[in-house]
Amino acid sequence: MSKTKEAIELIARGASEIISVDELEKKLQLKRPLRVKAGFDPTAPDLHLGHTVLINKLRQFQDLGHTVVFIIGDFTGMIGDPSGRSKTRPTLTEEDVVKNAETYKEQIFKILDPKKTEIIFNSEWMGKMHANELIKLASIYTVARMLERNDFEKRYKENQPIAIHEFLYPLIQGFDSVMVKADVEFGGTDQKFNLLVGRELQKHFKQAPQVVITMPLLEGLDGTRKMSKSYNNYIGIDESPDEMFGKLMSISDELMWRYYDLLSFKTNAEINQLKDDAQNGKNPRDIKILLAEEIISRFHNKELAQKAHENFIAQFKKGEIPDDIIEIKLLAQDGGWPIANLLKQAHLVNSTSDALRMIRQGAVKIDGAKITDERLLVTDSEYHVYQVGKRRFAKVKAG
Amino acid sequence: MSKTKEAIELIARGASEIISVDELEKKLQLKRPLRVKAGFDPTAPDLHLGHTVLINKLRQFQDLGHTVVFIIGDFTGMIGDPSGRSKTRPTLTEEDVVKNAETYKEQIFKILDPKKTEIIFNSEWMGKMHANELIKLASIYTVARMLERNDFEKRYKENQPIAIHEFLYPLIQGFDSVMVKADVEFGGTDQKFNLLVGRELQKHFKQAPQVVITMPLLEGLDGTRKMSKSYNNYIGIDESPDEMFGKLMSISDELMWRYYDLLSFKTNAEINQLKDDAQNGKNPRDIKILLAEEIISRFHNKELAQKAHENFIAQFKKGEIPDDIIEIKLLAQDGGWPIANLLKQAHLVNSTSDALRMIRQGAVKIDGAKITDERLLVTDSEYHVYQVGKRRFAKVKAG
Repeated sequence: MSKTKEAIELIARGASEIISVDELEKKLQLKRPLRVKAGFDPTAPDLHLGHTVLINKLRQFQDLGHTVVFIIGDFTGMIGDPSGRSKTRPTLTEEDVVKNAETYKEQIFKILDPKKTEIIFNSEWMGKMHANELIKLASIYTVARMLERNDFEKRYKENQPIAIHEFLYPLIQGFDSVMVKADVEFGGTDQKFNLLVGRELQKHFKQAPQVVITMPLLEGLDGTRKMSKSYNNYIGIDESPDEMFGKLMSISDELMWRYYDLLSFKTNAEINQLKDDAQNGKNPRDIKILLAEEIISRFHNKELAQKAHENFIAQFKKGEIPDDIIEIKLLAQDGGWPIANLLKQAHLVNSTSDALRMIRQGAVKIDGAKITDERLLVTDSEYHVYQVGKRRFAKVKAG
Repeated sequence: MSKTKEAIELIARGASEIISVDELEKKLQLKRPLRVKAGFDPTAPDLHLGHTVLINKLRQFQDLGHTVVFIIGDFTGMIGDPSGRSKTRPTLTEEDVVKNAETYKEQIFKILDPKKTEIIFNSEWMGKMHANELIKLASIYTVARMLERNDFEKRYKENQPIAIHEFLYPLIQGFDSVMVKADVEFGGTDQKFNLLVGRELQKHFKQAPQVVITMPLLEGLDGTRKMSKSYNNYIGIDESPDEMFGKLMSISDELMWRYYDLLSFKTNAEINQLKDDAQNGKNPRDIKILLAEEIISRFHNKELAQKAHENFIAQFKKGEIPDDIIEIKLLAQDGGWPIANLLKQAHLVNSTSDALRMIRQGAVKIDGAKITDERLLVTDSEYHVYQVGKRRFAKVKAG
């Protein structure tokens, strides 16, 4: 198989759509590094494995010698959502954006090679753009074609308001492709329309249109719904090695192969070998362990991955409560510690609302006994074992 | 009748719609001059009486003590139609715009009082506007409401392209109202939607919304189709007194009252008196003469109006060909003068294509004999009477 064909097979692995494979092939044969664009929100990232599917693909391009152009869409973020209808888009200050960019770097450089990554804010050109240039941009695209976008079409048919500036955002995103001279742009399947607008605008500006590659949403641990914080079926890339290991070992064998396709950096040949092994009687559990170790090595390191593996085996052998639980001593509080605050203080949950939800789900225990009272006040001069879910433990003295 | 009521009756005369009369009443009672806006294209004006209907209304406001804000929409004119689909919107240079504004002044100040007129180019603010401000503007209005505009709706349903920037123009026009703090805006009935956008934007920017007044299209001399150059049923405001007089005397009695409503500066009471006179047996011809004299006085002067009246009577009495026809001697041309060029050279038509059309309509005569050959070549050492239509004559020697 030619090098180019091999590269295409790797890139295509797990991708939803490539528009077009022929163009990609031609671009890969150019004697220069391609500019591979992906755009991200300027909000503070808190990435889980689902987000990394796309970043992994960017990394594959880097491994093939290409340049990643990581666009932070701070221009619209700093405008905020001017319609005031969406609560999820607060106006960000320049300071916020710079800070969030730093957080992005910290997280994405666990996957990407900083030497082959350009991080660019689109305010660089959009901040200087005059109204008349935006009008010219808007003249390139028609209302009818914009309304063909799935979500616009749905909202229009259901008489839900679409503010006119929402038609401008895809154009701005497309114009980013023109400004950075993107050869390839990646996005989720929901971004397909916007990525195609980029192609159109590049043609208008006499550039070769970018190849558009869309990636599917990664299924969460349950194997059915997309990975999402709100479904509590995710693995955050900042989670502890033990947490990651336990969660990855809990997925189905079928989902494991999906995760190999979308999350592993192994070659297609290596993955096919593993599939052969499984066919020939190898325990899928051991193949899952390889996946867990690879992913933990990526976000922590090899040693911690190994240790997590050992801890998992040990815990598995010894029963539910591990030996080496962290001990936390909280200062006495007047009236005692509300249980939700205590759990948060002990880092067993991320927030008190998280705590209350876990209590309602019956996932919180003290010394093995399930808690049901969300308003429990704890005052205790002795250590007790607090447990949230199957794998989170702490010994806490609350007074 | 109160002064305000009287003012409203005058303003309402001939208007299609006032949104709303209550608001207009309140504004007229403010102890300050109102700011009365009308927007015009930055293209060179060549006004006919149809255009003056709206300008007459502005003048009525001036007579009531208010200020006219005459907006020249040069911002979009200087962008041109960036879609490149419309041939009627060439890109104008700043120089063109300034020159056209001078031509506007010359023409509109035959009606408006320069002391109570502000002429403003909207490039003053739009030229400085940044893309992010335009995005904010676009966020105020929805796609669905924009598609409610008649022509947009029609084009959308008929799958005719609407470029996205076309949705921005009504917003820019509306924003002009915000910038000049318009109390009232006038436009043709086809402008109603855009004028209402102005109201919306003013509300958004915490201004009292402008009163919107739409004016109908004036019927041409035929009394049926709108007055338009392309229907050749118009009276240009630069036409000669004789031309104007003859054309105005040719209209029907019914159309005369329409013209009184829309073109005369007489008060409602005066017009009602004329109607009474007609009822009581006064010859409508004499009432038409009063109208013709008023209009000719406006665009020329009282003496010329009087003279036109006399010429008309004299011509009417003496038959078709007037005595005092202008004599034109053209230099000999090799092969003779093409008839169309000769007519143009003699100022009997505005263009050779005009000439050809008139010949085809059988409206061109030489010494009373109808011409049918569009390619006639004239070489003649004698003067002959050339006639176009009923009232245009010249004695021409073409060699």
